[in-house]
Amino acid sequence: MNKVKLKRRIDVAAKREEADLVIKNGHIIDVFNQELIKADVAIVEGTIVAIGDNFLGKEIIDAENKFICPSFIDGHVHIESSMISPPEFSKVVLPHGVTTIIADPHEIANVSGIKGIQYMLDSSDNIPLNVYMMLPSCVPATPFENAGAVLLAEDLDSLYNHPRVLGLGEVMDYPSVATTNQSMMDKLHRAIGRNKKIDGHAAGLNNEALNIYAAAGIKTDHEAVTGIEAKERLKRGMYVIIRQGSVAKDLPNLIEIVNEKNCRRCLFGTDDKHIDDLLLEGSIDHNVRLAIKHNIDPIMAISMASLNAAECYGLTTKGAIAPGYDADLLILNNLAEIEIESVYVGGKQVAKNGRMIEFDVQNTIVDSSLKDSIHIPSIHKQDLNIPVKKHQVANIIEIIPNSLLTNHLVEEINHEGGSFKPCIERDHLKIVVIERHRSTGNIGLGIVKGLKLKRGAIATTIAHDSHNIIAAGTNDDDLLFAVDQMKNIGGGLVAVDNNKVLAALPLPISGLISDENYHSVYRKLNDINHALQKLDASSEFNPFLTLSFLALPVIPHLKITDLGIFDVTSFKHIPLLGQN
Amino acid sequence: MNKVKLKRRIDVAAKREEADLVIKNGHIIDVFNQELIKADVAIVEGTIVAIGDNFLGKEIIDAENKFICPSFIDGHVHIESSMISPPEFSKVVLPHGVTTIIADPHEIANVSGIKGIQYMLDSSDNIPLNVYMMLPSCVPATPFENAGAVLLAEDLDSLYNHPRVLGLGEVMDYPSVATTNQSMMDKLHRAIGRNKKIDGHAAGLNNEALNIYAAAGIKTDHEAVTGIEAKERLKRGMYVIIRQGSVAKDLPNLIEIVNEKNCRRCLFGTDDKHIDDLLLEGSIDHNVRLAIKHNIDPIMAISMASLNAAECYGLTTKGAIAPGYDADLLILNNLAEIEIESVYVGGKQVAKNGRMIEFDVQNTIVDSSLKDSIHIPSIHKQDLNIPVKKHQVANIIEIIPNSLLTNHLVEEINHEGGSFKPCIERDHLKIVVIERHRSTGNIGLGIVKGLKLKRGAIATTIAHDSHNIIAAGTNDDDLLFAVDQMKNIGGGLVAVDNNKVLAALPLPISGLISDENYHSVYRKLNDINHALQKLDASSEFNPFLTLSFLALPVIPHLKITDLGIFDVTSFKHIPLLGQN
Repeated sequence: MNKVKLKRRIDVAAKREEADLVIKNGHIIDVFNQELIKADVAIVEGTIVAIGDNFLGKEIIDAENKFICPSFIDGHVHIESSMISPPEFSKVVLPHGVTTIIADPHEIANVSGIKGIQYMLDSSDNIPLNVYMMLPSCVPATPFENAGAVLLAEDLDSLYNHPRVLGLGEVMDYPSVATTNQSMMDKLHRAIGRNKKIDGHAAGLNNEALNIYAAAGIKTDHEAVTGIEAKERLKRGMYVIIRQGSVAKDLPNLIEIVNEKNCRRCLFGTDDKHIDDLLLEGSIDHNVRLAIKHNIDPIMAISMASLNAAECYGLTTKGAIAPGYDADLLILNNLAEIEIESVYVGGKQVAKNGRMIEFDVQNTIVDSSLKDSIHIPSIHKQDLNIPVKKHQVANIIEIIPNSLLTNHLVEEINHEGGSFKPCIERDHLKIVVIERHRSTGNIGLGIVKGLKLKRGAIATTIAHDSHNIIAAGTNDDDLLFAVDQMKNIGGGLVAVDNNKVLAALPLPISGLISDENYHSVYRKLNDINHALQKLDASSEFNPFLTLSFLALPVIPHLKITDLGIFDVTSFKHIPLLGQN
Repeated sequence: MNKVKLKRRIDVAAKREEADLVIKNGHIIDVFNQELIKADVAIVEGTIVAIGDNFLGKEIIDAENKFICPSFIDGHVHIESSMISPPEFSKVVLPHGVTTIIADPHEIANVSGIKGIQYMLDSSDNIPLNVYMMLPSCVPATPFENAGAVLLAEDLDSLYNHPRVLGLGEVMDYPSVATTNQSMMDKLHRAIGRNKKIDGHAAGLNNEALNIYAAAGIKTDHEAVTGIEAKERLKRGMYVIIRQGSVAKDLPNLIEIVNEKNCRRCLFGTDDKHIDDLLLEGSIDHNVRLAIKHNIDPIMAISMASLNAAECYGLTTKGAIAPGYDADLLILNNLAEIEIESVYVGGKQVAKNGRMIEFDVQNTIVDSSLKDSIHIPSIHKQDLNIPVKKHQVANIIEIIPNSLLTNHLVEEINHEGGSFKPCIERDHLKIVVIERHRSTGNIGLGIVKGLKLKRGAIATTIAHDSHNIIAAGTNDDDLLFAVDQMKNIGGGLVAVDNNKVLAALPLPISGLISDENYHSVYRKLNDINHALQKLDASSEFNPFLTLSFLALPVIPHLKITDLGIFDVTSFKHIPLLGQN
């Protein structure tokens, strides 16, 4: 903000100069008193400068019978989960009233390190969506797998100077905090020293662990799944980010404890939300509507989605319709349904009636290394072989549909010619995780039950958090073919049968993000879903989504990484096979 | 905070190490949920690191049946109004539970400029009270008088780097903001650019003027005197500092509009509170008690005095009893009366049962210029002469008891030998303002009605905001003698009669602050009050306090500066005498 701008703000507020835009006759949603104000709003150069009446404006909008509402802030989101680039993501969420997001580029950082974070920053420059970033704190997420990068405190340091970097992203490595691991202390200490925010990830933590987190300077959590958990976090001075995403849907449980006394410390996030859900259901607008359905007053719900998130992240000019605040606002047709008529960012209309107003995106130059992220040696059928002796049993990963948890089964398995043979009848499929960042040749082999494919194979490079190649299939030929496709398309999703590609969604940017527009991604994702039908996959759950969490070695009970089968209960790798 | 401290916090929270202090069995006041929590509190190296149970501690305090409460923050205070130095001030307010203040050294800056501010910073270093500063924005306060300093934006710049400087102090020069005066724009722009807070002073401003203030980036106001005014400020995103001081007592009016929905943006301040009121009535603890008397829930009132103030000023580790927060806390015997048993700052007990635990103050070296602030040429009786012609009338300042406002009277006056002669019967006294910073020889002469002295004269160097010498008396000999005393004692308060000093309170630091302890200042202030009785002064109001606002040329209707009589209505100087 320069002095000329400051002067113009005052001149317009003093009615000596015309506003750029005046929104007349609407009901302003006053998040400070949680009331409605019948007044006009004057805006100049992207900033609200006055509420009152008799403003002159170059452009006048009549909002009679409508509501002027601060636009929404997503307090915690991974853009990568949408599989689209930041500019495309903005086109999807802006029509839903989300004009600011706090993004954590944890996924791309695990593949491409600082270059990945830099791509997210660069590609979110000069787009209508305000994209703030929290720097990934846990790359790699665990020592039990090989990611594409290792980020130490000193690696993150220079990025803190970026004006859109607000702090240190979700600290998910609780053991490192609790044991005061030196590298983790470095990261926390540097963030605190710079007076930056630190996000938490307190999944399932008890009260003693919460004390440890809060004592370490961690100020938010988006992993509370019960009202009791949420309250324990609030008590310890943490902001609670109430998450409603594609997989984790915590809002109905958490909203029960939100009241007028504690709501200031509650805000909304989506965390991980896929392109289809974003398009069909919305983003934070969905959280707001759902909160209202759960008997939260609409203005309180709106405050949570705006002012509260802005306060949490120190965004002092966001989250309200008041002089001095950014003109990021919504015109709503009603409060009960939060029907969004139009969306403004910095005083400019960016969406109307659910449709984006097209904007020019300057093509971000993607560092070539990002588009070359699949580094595997040539893999042969024998590399996927699981030799089995008589009477051996296997430690089998059993899927629990629509849950990140798995069961640890110990069962006998089919074998033929001294090797494991997948069995459709018993739903024993082969699963492989192939390190894909540095051609180490690491291959983890395992057996999964409950994926319910009847033919072919599927593979993806979205495999939290290291994003190695994970593939599962009914036979080794298709498995190998699917893995090969990953190399061909630069990473993404593929479904194959009988050595043919049924459908592919290429994600050439770090194997996580498409370089195409969101329409195209959405279409290809639908193709993938049709291909899954051809493989006779269950429609009860999404096999790709399920697969993408089977390599995450922090969620019980049995997982698989590029280093083999991982028993989360004993927190160590175990052999796939054992003697009965 | 260094890494070793961070590690210890975690080690204590994890119960691997003993806490320095454990407060057991108390009811924690949870300002986030506005509820009570029955739990123990563990503290290490000045920071709360855990709430729960079974902590080991080097020191254990039993708070059975007591309340553990975040200590209080004064959101806006001028230490100078107490006439004592920051270390002495801390001894007075700490037993009242105030452990953090947001101070504006506006008064001393008007006398001694940057050196005055620097003294306040230096002398508040290493004392148990947390003293944060807002940099005076309006020195001089108006162009209609001569102060001791002129502070431009560039003068303030280097002070922003001080860790206890939070922003730009109360912007009271509304006309300069509204007219986008270049110097004011510089100050605002630099504060905004540094992401610093800007305090307002929106006395009597209407909604349009409030828009201008808020558009200019001003984020607080402590001058609302009605509930309606407070609400208009809240609507515009301003924090409302509810003031209860020695003169301005706004809490009863403002508290009416505070509710669970808007209270987060309301906090408490004292602004100007004198040593006697601080000792007898308290500081922010008094605001809290008064709020409770006005039916505010005690926990809500405590939240306003703690968390809300901390949030307003971005003090992210203050204002709550939670891990990661500073161990600035109170143990209360009850909630209804806010009876303070003991006060802790950074985990150390600093007061118990209303008594300070003595602390060593390293003597601040006071810059010699501060102790040499009375610069006047020798003044003779004829300098105070007001020549009067026949039939002339005078523009007389009429005091309204206990108000900062005055009436503008036009009356005939007594004269003798061609000169004005004070008249006890008509209560026409002579009043003089003598520029005391740069020996300009400027003397403003006037006539005051309503001061009700029957003999002698009084003089003081506390005369807002330029703090020139202001004196009033029944005869020129005593007036001259009183003014002379100002030079002798280095500024302060004096009451004289018949060329004898009845009582004097020397304030040698810039003519505003004593270099003695608070007991001594309190005693001498009582001596002054007794002396006023000897002058037959009215007990209805305080003549010194009244005098100290008669030179403030921004409050209607008639005032006097070193440049003469000032008509606030027409906003210009006018002649003392006129033709009938």
